[in-house]
Amino acid sequence: MSVRRLHLNAFLMGVGHHEAAWRHPVTDPARLGDVRHYQELARIAEAGGFDSVFLADGVQVWGDVEHTAAHVFEPLTLLTAMAAVTSRVGLIATVSTGYSEPYNLARWFASLDHISGGRAGWNIVTTAGDRSAQNFSLPGAPDHAERYERADEYLRVVTALWDSWADDAVLADRETGRFVDPAKVREIGHEGRFHRVRGPLNSTRSPQGHPLLVQAGSSEDGKAFAARWAEAVFTAHQTVESARKFYADLKGRLAGHGRGADSVKVLPGVVPVLGSTEEEANRLARELDELIVPARAVAQVSEMLGFDLSGHPLDRPLPPLPVTGVNGAQSRFALVRDLVERENPTLRELLSRLGGGRGHTVVVGTPERIADHIELWFTTGAADGFNVMAPLLPSGLTEFVDTVLPILRRRGLFRDDYTGTTLREHYGLARPADGFADLASAV
Amino acid sequence: MSVRRLHLNAFLMGVGHHEAAWRHPVTDPARLGDVRHYQELARIAEAGGFDSVFLADGVQVWGDVEHTAAHVFEPLTLLTAMAAVTSRVGLIATVSTGYSEPYNLARWFASLDHISGGRAGWNIVTTAGDRSAQNFSLPGAPDHAERYERADEYLRVVTALWDSWADDAVLADRETGRFVDPAKVREIGHEGRFHRVRGPLNSTRSPQGHPLLVQAGSSEDGKAFAARWAEAVFTAHQTVESARKFYADLKGRLAGHGRGADSVKVLPGVVPVLGSTEEEANRLARELDELIVPARAVAQVSEMLGFDLSGHPLDRPLPPLPVTGVNGAQSRFALVRDLVERENPTLRELLSRLGGGRGHTVVVGTPERIADHIELWFTTGAADGFNVMAPLLPSGLTEFVDTVLPILRRRGLFRDDYTGTTLREHYGLARPADGFADLASAV
Repeated sequence: MSVRRLHLNAFLMGVGHHEAAWRHPVTDPARLGDVRHYQELARIAEAGGFDSVFLADGVQVWGDVEHTAAHVFEPLTLLTAMAAVTSRVGLIATVSTGYSEPYNLARWFASLDHISGGRAGWNIVTTAGDRSAQNFSLPGAPDHAERYERADEYLRVVTALWDSWADDAVLADRETGRFVDPAKVREIGHEGRFHRVRGPLNSTRSPQGHPLLVQAGSSEDGKAFAARWAEAVFTAHQTVESARKFYADLKGRLAGHGRGADSVKVLPGVVPVLGSTEEEANRLARELDELIVPARAVAQVSEMLGFDLSGHPLDRPLPPLPVTGVNGAQSRFALVRDLVERENPTLRELLSRLGGGRGHTVVVGTPERIADHIELWFTTGAADGFNVMAPLLPSGLTEFVDTVLPILRRRGLFRDDYTGTTLREHYGLARPADGFADLASAV
Repeated sequence: MSVRRLHLNAFLMGVGHHEAAWRHPVTDPARLGDVRHYQELARIAEAGGFDSVFLADGVQVWGDVEHTAAHVFEPLTLLTAMAAVTSRVGLIATVSTGYSEPYNLARWFASLDHISGGRAGWNIVTTAGDRSAQNFSLPGAPDHAERYERADEYLRVVTALWDSWADDAVLADRETGRFVDPAKVREIGHEGRFHRVRGPLNSTRSPQGHPLLVQAGSSEDGKAFAARWAEAVFTAHQTVESARKFYADLKGRLAGHGRGADSVKVLPGVVPVLGSTEEEANRLARELDELIVPARAVAQVSEMLGFDLSGHPLDRPLPPLPVTGVNGAQSRFALVRDLVERENPTLRELLSRLGGGRGHTVVVGTPERIADHIELWFTTGAADGFNVMAPLLPSGLTEFVDTVLPILRRRGLFRDDYTGTTLREHYGLARPADGFADLASAV
């Protein structure tokens, strides 16, 4: 059996994950709107041997537009531009199951998979929030359970479309003029509660068969969905205990779907605030903290939690948060509630805790210290890899590649170079069969 | 006043526009699925100084799948990959108003416009055909008039979204932490018959303000729509008289919308079957003709006309076609009806006439002869430029650039090099204002 190795995803966000990144002197806010910035990030990640890069997304303007550095590119087009300047690194785009037709979505990802030579991944989100719904002719978003019910049907449609052409459907036989073997292309005839889709897809089967399926919801509904569909899971935890519990829970659900424990890779987020000394790292963390605009941070946390904290004094501890009752990002809500219960922070302290990683663990320290964090979580049942969220970009990603990766490699935790060409190969995941052989044998 | 010059668009399609292109020995069918082929085509077009490249599209598998060389890439992603290897040539993608949410579409084109530095264009289609509708949870397509009614509302939504951020909305003021001036971002509050869209778009205003709006329907509904919205029109004509009539008709409609005659560029299609002698060109035309699979060609013409010709003997003249009555591509239907009336062809002869350009004019001959055709149409009120449809790719495009363009330049008909950087600049079209100044003065 091969040695177990880390999987690393570079979660890219503008000029850095810290919400005040664009105000820090080492970044250049003009890069936010420049495709070459993102192409450079993809190249840095590929030079480091990252399994993939990843872009989050939403379909609305966020809370406090005045203080938010965002809103230029759409992920699939931006990742396609990154595909054009790289050859190995995987490319994971967030698209919602709520507001795009499954036929279109299946086709975009097949197209990105063709363009990139098998490097496409889809981060599946269901999209809470009425503001998003109101951009799509709906008064509000469906509730949490219905969103996941829709997502489940959506996945059945999309995967059937990806399998509507056999891998060997294209003959390209010049002699006879037969370009396609029509017995190797099928309608899907989906008639469901939310969608009716005839098919076939107007795309030949893509290099990976199915682009990698990624998911990030960690609620009960989210975990049930992930156990059925996901192949990589991004998740946010503040403590190794919480991450271990999530890891064991998710892996334990897989057998019920006839899936092996290795068929899903769990990647918690980590925000590495790096310095060559602890003092230097602490100074950077302080600098970033001081650049937070409190009003903006309060708006973001309020949006995350689904209720308004803008009236709460900054330097007073928060009241305990309710146990349930949000129709939003439920697992992120639970994370903040636990944090408030555990640490009893003032609102200002909470903003500082969340400003760097919106709930993901922030590790401030030397490269050794970051590597220790990664090793501990990786070797004690909390992670198969990490979603690396550099607070400043590109500098934080470059530093991670230059200083943390060599330590991880020295410790035998991360591979020296790519061993395959597709995203599935990087993650050690099988290529799904097209299902035509079963069909043929049944005839 | 500046000299009037040709506008040239390279209409790209697989390994060539001729339906049997992939069977001809100068093409390589493996290129159909290789993004580098399309990137090479974009580079050739840019080296020639073409205003733009263009991809058609549909949202279903076409008629005779067995004999059709198609179905790999989705246009927006493919054009993004082409954007990454070029810097001047415009990039026009076909997307239907029928099967994508306007919020998503506005965002994709804004993103492509950002990525390409202002080179995005949208070819607006309304999509006939029940097979397409059945991939999107509908039993069938709306009728012709309703499709255009929907398209009109769709354009109002999309253009309002593109104008929902002022050009100068982004402040990026590090000192104060204000990234955006919130007074320069507005909701659109659209409440229409088919769509309700709150806005604003989650994208800053793109380099062109609005990506170039292109349209290709030449029916009555199509022309009315074009007169209101289009800035470039692709159109198919078999005779210069027909093209002149269309040109005068369309330009005559513009004043009614307060638009100048120069605000829309009319580009008929031309399929140049080139040879260094007439004999060589005729030989190539014959070779391509002989590679047509009649059953496939009959299926395609039947699909185009909306009724089944598969029972008609190949070598018998066609009966007159009905005057009206199709719920499909009406103007293309009329073109074929006129051709049948004028020339009384057998079915086989009709297939040969349509095999090269699906109704667009095919010119077989030397570079001089192609240039004569272009000059005649351009200088006698039939065209502002051409949609160049090489029968074989990349060879036919390379030959056009190497042999026809020098003649057009010698004759002073085509500019020597790009004079701007955006697609709007290439076509000599103004950049739309963001509308915020009017608003401010009204306050």
